[in-house]
Amino acid sequence: MRWSSADIDALDAHFRKNLINSCTGFKPANLIGTQNAEGLTNLAIFSSVVHLGSDPALIGMFTRPVQVERHTYENILRTGKYTINQVSEVMVERAHHSSARFGKAQSEFDLCGFEAQFIENFGAPFVAESALKIGCELVSNIEISANGTRLLVGKVVMLEVADTFVASDGFIDLAAMNTMAISGLDGYNPVKSGVRFEYAKPDKPTTKL
Amino acid sequence: MRWSSADIDALDAHFRKNLINSCTGFKPANLIGTQNAEGLTNLAIFSSVVHLGSDPALIGMFTRPVQVERHTYENILRTGKYTINQVSEVMVERAHHSSARFGKAQSEFDLCGFEAQFIENFGAPFVAESALKIGCELVSNIEISANGTRLLVGKVVMLEVADTFVASDGFIDLAAMNTMAISGLDGYNPVKSGVRFEYAKPDKPTTKL
Repeated sequence: MRWSSADIDALDAHFRKNLINSCTGFKPANLIGTQNAEGLTNLAIFSSVVHLGSDPALIGMFTRPVQVERHTYENILRTGKYTINQVSEVMVERAHHSSARFGKAQSEFDLCGFEAQFIENFGAPFVAESALKIGCELVSNIEISANGTRLLVGKVVMLEVADTFVASDGFIDLAAMNTMAISGLDGYNPVKSGVRFEYAKPDKPTTKL
Repeated sequence: MRWSSADIDALDAHFRKNLINSCTGFKPANLIGTQNAEGLTNLAIFSSVVHLGSDPALIGMFTRPVQVERHTYENILRTGKYTINQVSEVMVERAHHSSARFGKAQSEFDLCGFEAQFIENFGAPFVAESALKIGCELVSNIEISANGTRLLVGKVVMLEVADTFVASDGFIDLAAMNTMAISGLDGYNPVKSGVRFEYAKPDKPTTKL
């Protein structure tokens, strides 16, 4: 099937949403933990977390201020702090439920069945169950003028990974911790163990690490 | 293992690169096709492609102008056109090889063993072998001031997916087409078929679609 720009504009909105959300490939599955000025915790699943750089350690995250993630966005603007927590296979039903439009006075931690964990008074709650937890401080809030989306740039100020999953060179075995991949708006896929390749060189065939 | 901000700054650079590149979760595997003003084709693997919105259909991609992707970046700035091509399991060794620092006069299509496909005079080459191909036009080039990275925002102006992988509601079955997920800098993982869940509601448990 082939769609032109005009074809895409003319598509049924629901079909287009599924199609365009799927076409970029697999996405990471993360729960974003925040709290408001009164300390009420909030948790929401995001598939838009991206690596931006390792020195300094920066992570990006896209959000649309007017959508369901608005509590997350408001809390991050207010406190400057948020957590990124890996979603494993056993967490996936509960993690998806966090995308429901719960009221502002409700905490998705309680309603979806996750334990809020506070580490070293960080200022945002972590998901106790996640084998990989990141504490971020907001650095920039960049508007994507083409559609009003926001790119939140965060600095990694705390990182916790269960020891057994970290290789001697720093690589984290996401498959071994049963981290899920997201496809489209509503698909969740388990991932098999993979291969690592050596740094590529023009005159050398690809070699396993 | 737990690292503070100071611990992260003090890490060995190679260890930190692997650790921070892994911690955000699985990433999509895509080959970016471009050509220069003289029509010489270029191909490079990227793990930084992100969905930005479906109406209009917008896709983002992060690049660091000074790094190995410079030919891709220069070509996109010059022509305003690029293609995003899904990487399946049988393509993965060749796709990784495209990250080597080939010379400007060399085409990764030839050197890595991919066929360049021109569709409707699009202005950038597609990868014939990919079951999912996207043609993009550059809309914005946004600097992430925190580290000098660039977010290229592109409008989807052509999309081609092998029929058998598109569900009646527009969802693309990435696992069925053996699309790979990337972990860290150099890990490639096959993905299992997954589940889809219904739109989440506060008072309803998560239900399979």
